[in-house]
Amino acid sequence: MNREYPSAALERAVGEFAKLPGIGRKTALRLVLHMLSKPDEEVSTFGRVFSTLKQDIKYCKVCHNISDTDTCAICANPKRDSSTLCVVENVQDVLAVESTMQFNGLYHVLGGVISPMDGVGPQDLQIASLVDRVAAGGINEVILALSPTMEGDTTNFFISRKLQQFGVKLSVIARGVAVGNNLEYADEVSLGRSIQDRTPLK
Amino acid sequence: MNREYPSAALERAVGEFAKLPGIGRKTALRLVLHMLSKPDEEVSTFGRVFSTLKQDIKYCKVCHNISDTDTCAICANPKRDSSTLCVVENVQDVLAVESTMQFNGLYHVLGGVISPMDGVGPQDLQIASLVDRVAAGGINEVILALSPTMEGDTTNFFISRKLQQFGVKLSVIARGVAVGNNLEYADEVSLGRSIQDRTPLK
Repeated sequence: MNREYPSAALERAVGEFAKLPGIGRKTALRLVLHMLSKPDEEVSTFGRVFSTLKQDIKYCKVCHNISDTDTCAICANPKRDSSTLCVVENVQDVLAVESTMQFNGLYHVLGGVISPMDGVGPQDLQIASLVDRVAAGGINEVILALSPTMEGDTTNFFISRKLQQFGVKLSVIARGVAVGNNLEYADEVSLGRSIQDRTPLK
Repeated sequence: MNREYPSAALERAVGEFAKLPGIGRKTALRLVLHMLSKPDEEVSTFGRVFSTLKQDIKYCKVCHNISDTDTCAICANPKRDSSTLCVVENVQDVLAVESTMQFNGLYHVLGGVISPMDGVGPQDLQIASLVDRVAAGGINEVILALSPTMEGDTTNFFISRKLQQFGVKLSVIARGVAVGNNLEYADEVSLGRSIQDRTPLK
């Protein structure tokens, strides 16, 4: 036998799981064997959900967040402040910002950050539509809430250059020492930023 | 919104992944978003493989291991010693024993161990077919290679009671200190067993 498993069907299922990030072949085999111990109906439902996943998932035509409707629940909510936009990388970041309950504006989901290493340029992201949204007027502030990485900073810079002509207020989320962390465990860069960006005591 | 995600399709896909052992909702969301970044064809292939998984996977009618053919490659191999059976819990254990290259007999895959806590009784396992195989004759030794747990021991005991009438040699894989481990790090039970089951120096 020049393959690892005693069955091509098993091989194929393990291979599919092992394509996912963070899942190796051992874990994949464990997952497939777990599925085999489940009722037929449950396993075929699992399969069906993913066979149509890409067709089932829709994106909000305003903010590009995942949504079941043309306009997502956040964009359609009249109680939210439509003059403030928070620019994030992906759906998880929308959920993260929402969970803070500190933001009542609307979002703009870029779908990633500029990363020449991964072949992601500005044209692969929802930057043109962000510029269009701001150009249409009614927006006072754009908060850039991208990851504090080199790619995030590059994207911040690129977006700020594109938006400066519209005279909207641009801000970047604060970087500094995480709340609840001892200073001695903070990395120097974050601690340095937290000193530079110190805020007056209220 | 009383659900966690902005879309029912997303919710459903995340829910399916999160049913798998060791995958929480955060990991599940990460996996689904990863899939959304892949081409349509790749994602629908993933789905198709699992929608027919239970129908595609066949079991060897002799040893009950996963197989593409009626009789698996191991059972069908004339070079293997058909007088020795190794009783294991599942496919992974067959792969584990095979990888040692220390066993040239045939297998019998139980499909689990007796575990009253999980509602698994002897009738849920391939024990009756094991008894039939031994009763049919031609088998000299049955090696029980189940996990060294309470459930494994219970299953060993149950099987040994069922097989004793046939006068075959019954053995259990050795338990002791793992090869390459320092004695000081071995747990007391394993170390105790390794003293009880000491073997003469060759």
